[in-house]
Amino acid sequence: MATQKRGRHSFVPSQPPVITAWASVAGKKESQGPLAHTFDITSQDALFGQKSWELAEKKMQQLALDTLMQKAGILPGELDLVFSGDLLNQCICSSFTLRNRDIPHLGLYGACSTMAQSLLLATMAISGGFADKAVAMTSSHFASSERQYRFPLGYGGQRTPTAQWTVTGSGAALVCSEGTGPTVQSCTIGTVKDMGIKDANNMGAAMAPAAYDTIRNHFEDLGTGPEDFDLIVTGDLGQIGKELLLELARHDGIHLGGKLADCGTMVFDNTKQDVHSGGSGCGCSAITLCGELLGKLRQKKLKKILFCGTGALLSPTSTQQGLPIPGVCHAVCIQGGS
Amino acid sequence: MATQKRGRHSFVPSQPPVITAWASVAGKKESQGPLAHTFDITSQDALFGQKSWELAEKKMQQLALDTLMQKAGILPGELDLVFSGDLLNQCICSSFTLRNRDIPHLGLYGACSTMAQSLLLATMAISGGFADKAVAMTSSHFASSERQYRFPLGYGGQRTPTAQWTVTGSGAALVCSEGTGPTVQSCTIGTVKDMGIKDANNMGAAMAPAAYDTIRNHFEDLGTGPEDFDLIVTGDLGQIGKELLLELARHDGIHLGGKLADCGTMVFDNTKQDVHSGGSGCGCSAITLCGELLGKLRQKKLKKILFCGTGALLSPTSTQQGLPIPGVCHAVCIQGGS
Repeated sequence: MATQKRGRHSFVPSQPPVITAWASVAGKKESQGPLAHTFDITSQDALFGQKSWELAEKKMQQLALDTLMQKAGILPGELDLVFSGDLLNQCICSSFTLRNRDIPHLGLYGACSTMAQSLLLATMAISGGFADKAVAMTSSHFASSERQYRFPLGYGGQRTPTAQWTVTGSGAALVCSEGTGPTVQSCTIGTVKDMGIKDANNMGAAMAPAAYDTIRNHFEDLGTGPEDFDLIVTGDLGQIGKELLLELARHDGIHLGGKLADCGTMVFDNTKQDVHSGGSGCGCSAITLCGELLGKLRQKKLKKILFCGTGALLSPTSTQQGLPIPGVCHAVCIQGGS
Repeated sequence: MATQKRGRHSFVPSQPPVITAWASVAGKKESQGPLAHTFDITSQDALFGQKSWELAEKKMQQLALDTLMQKAGILPGELDLVFSGDLLNQCICSSFTLRNRDIPHLGLYGACSTMAQSLLLATMAISGGFADKAVAMTSSHFASSERQYRFPLGYGGQRTPTAQWTVTGSGAALVCSEGTGPTVQSCTIGTVKDMGIKDANNMGAAMAPAAYDTIRNHFEDLGTGPEDFDLIVTGDLGQIGKELLLELARHDGIHLGGKLADCGTMVFDNTKQDVHSGGSGCGCSAITLCGELLGKLRQKKLKKILFCGTGALLSPTSTQQGLPIPGVCHAVCIQGGS
């Protein structure tokens, strides 16, 4: 097998896989934000007709997967593989979405980096010849996250200025060995970075070092720089994390300035929607990618982007035990397609 | 890229990766069981010198990874990729093990199937040419699992006859593009099966249908049968789940009888160690593979095995909400090596 490896952290598929279809499902607050027109399905009911927040999140993933297959014109039996994960304990949302569908499934945990991680692994599976059609998918829900990570919603806790708002949404992308659409040109696998940040209400700061590490590794492994991209887009650093990332890069003489965007600052209007530092959660980068970004890549309004999923690898237990918050970031370079 | 895909659920690496080294770390109860002589490190201190059960589990993964590198004679900088996951909420054990080690990491959630899932993905990464040296790793700890999934240990809850005992242990395997050792010949990716089992103290029953589905898919995709293996070994079905699997197979005219073993019934002496239906947890199949099984494959006491990691995809939340327990199983065919 010819090597597709580049440098220490990256790989370049010898036959770039094609993202032939994508789908997104979003909640009420997201449907009031600037990307509203890019979602396939929105609901004004936070419960999506279900009886718990967890089941609502599962419903979103089911809708995203079903919409994806409908848009691609394929049946479940034509899917070789689904890579998916979520934030809920034991990733129950992803497991329950796929039960009894007879679709091979590999479960992931990459916190909010899951959209990028699943896309990266789908790229491996397709370009390695292990599958012809693979799905990358994830979700998050504001209410299921809040009660798991922070406080019961009914408690009415005050949110800090550095806090972010977990996106209610699910995104799914279909990665194929052939077809038309944006293509995956290269991927960079993240390493776990821990700079000692312990504030679970400032996850942007916890993730910025990991984002910088992965972006720098991508540039080094592939011999590229900011000038080679229309957009370098992180998952959910939010306003504070984004500024930290710019600062970290500037310190090394890398100017991300005009090229850097963050899904957490794209998905909501931070000046009007009271989300503090911006959006977050697996769904944040998922619905921004599987709508706005892939849409613009298909229309060639964007030629090439570096999609950098960011994840904060904490749990309530690690926080309660006084441990810091490690971060991770996986990057996928996507080129506008035919 | 030449296809390595076989059938709906399986793949056959065109260049079989080699498992060149492995390491296992186990706790006190495991060190009193029949596989005691196969572990690299055992501890009589359940806390492994740490101040919480979660940190003890992390310490085990660190020891497994460090011992693996030591046995293989490699430095962290020579590792291209680690696939790992665990049972703790948000997989903190795996994330914290890898923080600031500068090793590319992809986090998984496959419940107790993680050893097989990580081995399967490492096989993809190596045989697809994305990495030269990849680690597959996981862990579980009796005490961190009990308090997360069931009751605080101090509560002294009575265990049901169908209950299993979560193994305290961690296993790690090094998968390489070249070298000597057992080789991975083929893999079968599991689908999520849910037969409506709701008893969180009978996970063997919840996982048996998934195990049978994957084993049957493996036979169908690869055109093989029980007669082609010295051993078909499931991860942690325990005594009850193993009997259910035999029954499911027999119903279809497949006789697994003399070939079937389960790590959950190998790792403890069920007649003397009061573990009820047997061992369980990610560590159960991990320490059985990364010791007894790979050891016998290297010595050619076993020629070919089908290693079937089984996972119960529940969470305390899904159980409290009255949902059933879906199961999954991933299979890896390993051949005795030079």
